[in-house]
Amino acid sequence: MKEIKISIAGASGITGIELLKILDRHEYSTIITVLSRTFEDKKISSVFQNTLNLNKNKNIFFKNFFSKSDIKDSDLIFLCLPPGKSMEYVKYLMENDYKGKIIDLGSDFRLKKPEVYEEWYKDRHILKDMLPRFVYGLPELNKKEIKNADYVANPGCYPTSVILALAPLLNLKYLEFDSITIDSKSGVSGAGRKLKDDYLFLNISENFFAYSPVKHRHIPEIEQELKNISESVNKISFTPHLLPINRGIFTSIYVGGTNIGEIIDAEDKIRAFYEDFYKNETFIKFINNDVPKISNVSGTNSAHIGFMADYRTSIIKIFSAIDNILKGASGQAVQNMNLMFGLDEEEGLNMLGNYN
Amino acid sequence: MKEIKISIAGASGITGIELLKILDRHEYSTIITVLSRTFEDKKISSVFQNTLNLNKNKNIFFKNFFSKSDIKDSDLIFLCLPPGKSMEYVKYLMENDYKGKIIDLGSDFRLKKPEVYEEWYKDRHILKDMLPRFVYGLPELNKKEIKNADYVANPGCYPTSVILALAPLLNLKYLEFDSITIDSKSGVSGAGRKLKDDYLFLNISENFFAYSPVKHRHIPEIEQELKNISESVNKISFTPHLLPINRGIFTSIYVGGTNIGEIIDAEDKIRAFYEDFYKNETFIKFINNDVPKISNVSGTNSAHIGFMADYRTSIIKIFSAIDNILKGASGQAVQNMNLMFGLDEEEGLNMLGNYN
Amino acid sequence: MKEIKISIAGASGITGIELLKILDRHEYSTIITVLSRTFEDKKISSVFQNTLNLNKNKNIFFKNFFSKSDIKDSDLIFLCLPPGKSMEYVKYLMENDYKGKIIDLGSDFRLKKPEVYEEWYKDRHILKDMLPRFVYGLPELNKKEIKNADYVANPGCYPTSVILALAPLLNLKYLEFDSITIDSKSGVSGAGRKLKDDYLFLNISENFFAYSPVKHRHIPEIEQELKNISESVNKISFTPHLLPINRGIFTSIYVGGTNIGEIIDAEDKIRAFYEDFYKNETFIKFINNDVPKISNVSGTNSAHIGFMADYRTSIIKIFSAIDNILKGASGQAVQNMNLMFGLDEEEGLNMLGNYN
Amino acid sequence: MKEIKISIAGASGITGIELLKILDRHEYSTIITVLSRTFEDKKISSVFQNTLNLNKNKNIFFKNFFSKSDIKDSDLIFLCLPPGKSMEYVKYLMENDYKGKIIDLGSDFRLKKPEVYEEWYKDRHILKDMLPRFVYGLPELNKKEIKNADYVANPGCYPTSVILALAPLLNLKYLEFDSITIDSKSGVSGAGRKLKDDYLFLNISENFFAYSPVKHRHIPEIEQELKNISESVNKISFTPHLLPINRGIFTSIYVGGTNIGEIIDAEDKIRAFYEDFYKNETFIKFINNDVPKISNVSGTNSAHIGFMADYRTSIIKIFSAIDNILKGASGQAVQNMNLMFGLDEEEGLNMLGNYN
Repeated sequence: MKEIKISIAGASGITGIELLKILDRHEYSTIITVLSRTFEDKKISSVFQNTLNLNKNKNIFFKNFFSKSDIKDSDLIFLCLPPGKSMEYVKYLMENDYKGKIIDLGSDFRLKKPEVYEEWYKDRHILKDMLPRFVYGLPELNKKEIKNADYVANPGCYPTSVILALAPLLNLKYLEFDSITIDSKSGVSGAGRKLKDDYLFLNISENFFAYSPVKHRHIPEIEQELKNISESVNKISFTPHLLPINRGIFTSIYVGGTNIGEIIDAEDKIRAFYEDFYKNETFIKFINNDVPKISNVSGTNSAHIGFMADYRTSIIKIFSAIDNILKGASGQAVQNMNLMFGLDEEEGLNMLGNYN
Repeated sequence: MKEIKISIAGASGITGIELLKILDRHEYSTIITVLSRTFEDKKISSVFQNTLNLNKNKNIFFKNFFSKSDIKDSDLIFLCLPPGKSMEYVKYLMENDYKGKIIDLGSDFRLKKPEVYEEWYKDRHILKDMLPRFVYGLPELNKKEIKNADYVANPGCYPTSVILALAPLLNLKYLEFDSITIDSKSGVSGAGRKLKDDYLFLNISENFFAYSPVKHRHIPEIEQELKNISESVNKISFTPHLLPINRGIFTSIYVGGTNIGEIIDAEDKIRAFYEDFYKNETFIKFINNDVPKISNVSGTNSAHIGFMADYRTSIIKIFSAIDNILKGASGQAVQNMNLMFGLDEEEGLNMLGNYN
Repeated sequence: MKEIKISIAGASGITGIELLKILDRHEYSTIITVLSRTFEDKKISSVFQNTLNLNKNKNIFFKNFFSKSDIKDSDLIFLCLPPGKSMEYVKYLMENDYKGKIIDLGSDFRLKKPEVYEEWYKDRHILKDMLPRFVYGLPELNKKEIKNADYVANPGCYPTSVILALAPLLNLKYLEFDSITIDSKSGVSGAGRKLKDDYLFLNISENFFAYSPVKHRHIPEIEQELKNISESVNKISFTPHLLPINRGIFTSIYVGGTNIGEIIDAEDKIRAFYEDFYKNETFIKFINNDVPKISNVSGTNSAHIGFMADYRTSIIKIFSAIDNILKGASGQAVQNMNLMFGLDEEEGLNMLGNYN
Repeated sequence: MKEIKISIAGASGITGIELLKILDRHEYSTIITVLSRTFEDKKISSVFQNTLNLNKNKNIFFKNFFSKSDIKDSDLIFLCLPPGKSMEYVKYLMENDYKGKIIDLGSDFRLKKPEVYEEWYKDRHILKDMLPRFVYGLPELNKKEIKNADYVANPGCYPTSVILALAPLLNLKYLEFDSITIDSKSGVSGAGRKLKDDYLFLNISENFFAYSPVKHRHIPEIEQELKNISESVNKISFTPHLLPINRGIFTSIYVGGTNIGEIIDAEDKIRAFYEDFYKNETFIKFINNDVPKISNVSGTNSAHIGFMADYRTSIIKIFSAIDNILKGASGQAVQNMNLMFGLDEEEGLNMLGNYN
């Protein structure tokens, strides 16, 4: 039995706490150090009442920085940091001769072209030469690379929901199409615990609206990865909306101008292909003849994907549902960790789900 | 001051009760008879505790059918009935020589071609010759016809949210486009008070999903009305979703393959055109430089419309928000009544809204 | 027809905006000046999209202070201010020779004994001699005094829900009891728009908890008013809780150690007394043989009250439901205004309610 | 390692499905047969999309009755049945010579006196002689009895939240009191998946109300168990309310007429006693100096308990929060199973919780 010694930067945010909760039940994890500036020197369960239910990590204290020995002892460091901060930490770790692995839940190492990062994030990238060393951590598509990786860039929540839904379709060589229109709806936890007017109960409950309607930062990430799958993908239209729920993303994708009318048994063929594409993937369920629902994946690391061919308009509709904090962030990060350390991919990710 | 004597069939459903609540505050309305099979002979406020707050109509009893004198005395009959039932009532009224006006909140007289009705509703239309006599009751587009109409087919909730949002754009002659993709999200009240598993709190709360993903019955209504505005519209793609809120529809419309890149100041021009298009319409607000939100229209008869040009993908995004029970049903029905009887269009529709 | 010229301090908070919305539909109101430090010089509808639906007050701008002419011209000033601020404004108005009426929605003039204010609010009262001139503005109990008042202290939301529920019972001279235990549950709007962690959607949705469990500041207000009704009331136990809804307070009151077992037909008698007590009060509905629900009063100025005798334990249970922002704040303030100016008590308060 | 062969009657209700989900992750459980009349011969994951995430039990089919071999092979049978049904099943099992253990999640064997059952459930008890053989399965209070039991009556959800909260206090011999007033608030899942108007999203969302205000069937169960702890308990007042959330019970208990004013350091002493009382109980957390919240226990088998002394009114306030489906039903049932079979009490109950 191998023990994996783990440290976490940004441990008191939503994805950090969720990571700690998963690792608490992970057989091989040992937490060394968790960082939080806001709660420095505070015991985790005195700040977050829900961590009273933890077992091995209940009495952890937050620290303000990684000591030399933290860096020396850690086999794996998770970064749960806002844009621009992960690269600072990675730089610091490299300068201090860190030998372990890194999983970055932030956005600094997802975009392979630094100029694209700088355009969408309006910030200089200070660690361009590290970009090629980070593998894009979507396990169902890049499993082999992840297994061999030292550094993984964990995908964004929206990109996870989009790419998993589209990957099989884009692999269907005989399918032609004109456009991809993506309409995503996310629970509020996607915004973390930001104290912003928009995220007050008052302003979310019994409400719904689109935001960042033309320039959400997940767009270049989606485009980069879809183009990797199929050269026929060009620019995509992506519009995020805020749902009055805590957890979950539901993504509706409209693939327009298709040749489905010309393909015999198009719908059956595509269905069969989807089934087959993910048949060995424990966390992906293809919902045959129905539409997925957020409630069925909430609290789990699963993605549910559904599909419908609209012959009347030559549009293919694909729907996906994930838990944005689990498969869209911390759950997928642990899935990546399991692969990087040769463990069972499901270790620690056996949640029951929240549904009644 | 004119008094309008009103009867309602299907008065105990959500749109029926909402109508009664509006008419209770309407200066010129007098309720004669309200029908409900379920609650025959029951006093309205003994069945619906919220009608205890009514003034003039608090003590109304539900009846089972219209008597001869009801038919003789009514100046206006509202029909709040499921598909197939309105035509039966209209037939009965005609056979009994009803001389008053009719506003049908149901779907039987919205589609002008009976064969389209029969295809989408899987039912025979028994009153085809009455179809031409019903005016499609979207006041902002058909005001003159409604003022002169005896019979009005009140629009569906989704079509209202779609057509109001697209009408100005479709009137822009120099704008070309390939496709219209509509992604609508509705609160649960759209399903009425149906006792169905899907509508239990348990199955809606902290959940979200698409339904009827390729064949919702509002599609032919949307297509019919959009084609009336612009011949360049062909088939549209429409996908409804269920929101974990009571009231409100938010519609996101993606107009693809446009020539916006070739038009100088495209965005400013379109904005100005939208502003101008609805400048005399008291219930339509164009939200300049922002996205509309359901909370700002919930509990009102208003539609809020927003707009965003995505030059990068040549897509125009239009967003609209309405209260599905008011502007999407009973509020619009009273707006139509006001026009048909030469009253102030806002009479009885001066609600404050639910927003905090 | 009299015109009432009105100014509002603290107009951009939840109760301030709600007041403006009500007054927008109030036949005799004319807004002169509305104050908001946060939004000085901003147009109201540019800050609050929901005020786009206003009619006469849509184009109001927020100001930072009352000018001499504001003070001279106002017939009525509403104060929607946090504890300690109303007295400063009243002092300023007095010093500037204000001749009009005042309705204070804050807490500074509700407690008649300044030492009680100072104990519970931990602050000095700077205007003790004005306290006797403020009438406690609960119209159903103090109508005559309010009609003659120049200055009204508008009740707190919890006290409104408690006092209206208990007043009839406390007037029953033959009823004896030992204790009054009050368990109140309020929607989040009661906390205004405060940017506090506790009020994030994330922390309210799918959650519930008690707060301020032994020293909520509404306790002395409740005790003062209940003792005015019956000397048999001593200290009461009051515990507030936060509900995952926007609007509404539901209060459960347990009157313990009663002699109901000794009274013949106790339940019928008490019911009859409740019915009779409020029979002329348009905003109070006694729910016979059922329990009130928040949904039936949400969006209205009504209070619904229900009652149940538990003979087994000699406890009387009383339930009340109000909309905390309307009957619990701004609606009641307009009701007081109507009484103070000799208008119909319902003017401007004819809302339909939010219920489906 | 021992394998426990398990069957479940009533497996398709909320508690049945939750039980199946827990047992799916339970190392020693093997499901033999699950019964559901509604879904006879259907595969579980074809009916409940959320069970697609199960591992070992994903392909189970529902059956209509237990065969002879089911009865012979089962080591443990869980009954998840409505009132009156469990006794029929137990009778049938006894008649068919069932040798295994039984955990009844229903209400038929909780009340020790059959006449009390018959009074509150308005039904004849057909298996009175079995009543003494059923142990009341509240592990924190009856651990030894449960370990030795063949038959366990799993507590009701409200009683669990009440008894755990009060047990330490009632064990404080020097504490005197007059009355116990209980105000409980439950999420909607407590009502199962019943298709009832009251449980529609429309009627729960943005709403709150009391129900069964004087005669809820959990009252005699609470009284029976509290009297077992302390003879000073007599009749208690219990009032349940419905919360607009899916899961969780929050209970507020007011212990009135106490002598806390006479005890030196009363609050500190009681706190210390609570801490100590549950110090070896892994599922009970005493929340020192704060109030528990539903969000911190939702999705877990934990109970959080808080406490506050109100010296001003001589009232002690105790608050508890549990997940009604887990600690209030299926989680506690598995906790009992673990004890009955000599396993680690936490086996299978290591959930992370739903909180963000």
